[in-house]
Amino acid sequence: MAPIDVFAHVLPPDFYARMLKIEPEIPKRYAFFNNPTLSDMANRRACWDGKTRQVISFVNALPEDYVGADEAAKLCWEGNEELIAMRRADADMFEATVLLVPMNNMDEAVRIVNEQVCGNDDVVGVQIFTRALGLSIADERFRPLFSALAKADVPAWLHPVFDLRKPDNNIVFSWEYELTQAMMQMVQAGLLQEFSDLKVICHHAGGMVPFFAGRVDRILPSDQAADMRKFYVDTAILGNPKALDLAADYYGVDHVLFGTDAPLGIPPAGATKEILAAIDSMIVSDSDKDAILFGNYQRIIG
Amino acid sequence: MAPIDVFAHVLPPDFYARMLKIEPEIPKRYAFFNNPTLSDMANRRACWDGKTRQVISFVNALPEDYVGADEAAKLCWEGNEELIAMRRADADMFEATVLLVPMNNMDEAVRIVNEQVCGNDDVVGVQIFTRALGLSIADERFRPLFSALAKADVPAWLHPVFDLRKPDNNIVFSWEYELTQAMMQMVQAGLLQEFSDLKVICHHAGGMVPFFAGRVDRILPSDQAADMRKFYVDTAILGNPKALDLAADYYGVDHVLFGTDAPLGIPPAGATKEILAAIDSMIVSDSDKDAILFGNYQRIIG
Repeated sequence: MAPIDVFAHVLPPDFYARMLKIEPEIPKRYAFFNNPTLSDMANRRACWDGKTRQVISFVNALPEDYVGADEAAKLCWEGNEELIAMRRADADMFEATVLLVPMNNMDEAVRIVNEQVCGNDDVVGVQIFTRALGLSIADERFRPLFSALAKADVPAWLHPVFDLRKPDNNIVFSWEYELTQAMMQMVQAGLLQEFSDLKVICHHAGGMVPFFAGRVDRILPSDQAADMRKFYVDTAILGNPKALDLAADYYGVDHVLFGTDAPLGIPPAGATKEILAAIDSMIVSDSDKDAILFGNYQRIIG
Repeated sequence: MAPIDVFAHVLPPDFYARMLKIEPEIPKRYAFFNNPTLSDMANRRACWDGKTRQVISFVNALPEDYVGADEAAKLCWEGNEELIAMRRADADMFEATVLLVPMNNMDEAVRIVNEQVCGNDDVVGVQIFTRALGLSIADERFRPLFSALAKADVPAWLHPVFDLRKPDNNIVFSWEYELTQAMMQMVQAGLLQEFSDLKVICHHAGGMVPFFAGRVDRILPSDQAADMRKFYVDTAILGNPKALDLAADYYGVDHVLFGTDAPLGIPPAGATKEILAAIDSMIVSDSDKDAILFGNYQRIIG
């Protein structure tokens, strides 16, 4: 069975062209927008290992940061269709897609869950970001989206963004901190209690939680500490088998899914090889490794 | 050989009474100020395990946050004398002291290193905090202190404080993030290059660095990534042997020192028992465990 990389990114070219018309400065914000394997699928294929099947999602050029509710919804719907077409055009490389929703338009976000995700074999979930509209993802305003995801049994993929209120942001540590803060805020907002079927797959092996499990367990109220273990996490920490063992120990092996952040992290097309090697070096059993590589994904997607 | 806890705190009662006269609200900021075992040594002894020898430092009620340069220096000098007297009065419990310096008075901070630390058998180092005067500890303004520490071969104990410019601070994760940011800022300021003999012992097992070593190694320039491994770290993460193994793997066993944050973390008097059990459960050899429990401290203090 081929490994399934649950957290891989693309930048659909038509969507990106529209975003650039709205904000030409986007590629200056993050150097990684210029990675050609995000948009050029011939290039992507040239770097492909010939076996790993990627679940593709957008990189963070987010419509709600730049345009109003109606235009953001249109950009999401059409960008998602383009993403789905990319998956179909390279179905050997791309296992499935994870869609974008307009966070400034909850009605259309819910409609995307119910009409563009559900019943579409090319789609397995929705990507959310740690903050939106200057608010935590756990803000009351976004609750309709979580309600819709839980009702439809659609998993959310949680990706970090900077909190622009804070100085000294950097991509080495700040994204990981924001991911962790968002997880705690979701727990403290009661989202994992109210929507007990909600599945959230967190990028970067669940951020700071496994290493600081002692603080989580001793400082948070026990029901919140228990909810922190309900998250699912990927393996996108660029290697580090001992850290992956720690994550598996904390969340349980059944909550860890192979994910790489491809094509980012290690030039030219990501850390797929390094992360596969790290999983191979984990102390868990071979059947647990298979669960991480594809079994857990298949169980969650159903 | 008894374990030596390198990161334990007290709150000298005369010093605290003076600080309370200046700012009566201090105990409202952090609940832990009300822990009686911080100031009442009869209480502390009643909770003592009868073997662990603690290296004691102040909790973070920091003079420079409240008063000018002269008064801050006086509070530090006299508070340090009180701390030293506490050590002498309970020399079976307290291995040594780590002194406070006024960050708004570099001349007196340097004089404390040269006159109150050096040549005093009761003192082994100086405690610094991740930020001071609203600036990073790596700010140019604090360089004279690092220069003095390096010249005198006096280790620095690095403790986190909140960055008050940032919203959503919490003691579960924000302190760990601030610790990590300060470590990176020290490296990026070139402090570990300019002062190559400088020894910095970081609280909480070195923050986010071991878990995100992949990001550190891949995103930072290689000389900076190498400098990140020069820090020494304690074991104060409330248990979690797999996380301690990860820290030992990243920094090297010779850079990990038993430290608990006593009497904080687990009521009534800290996590000494839990952290000793975690070290016992680490995968490293028995001689490596002895190095963590006392050998590395003895080597560093010399």
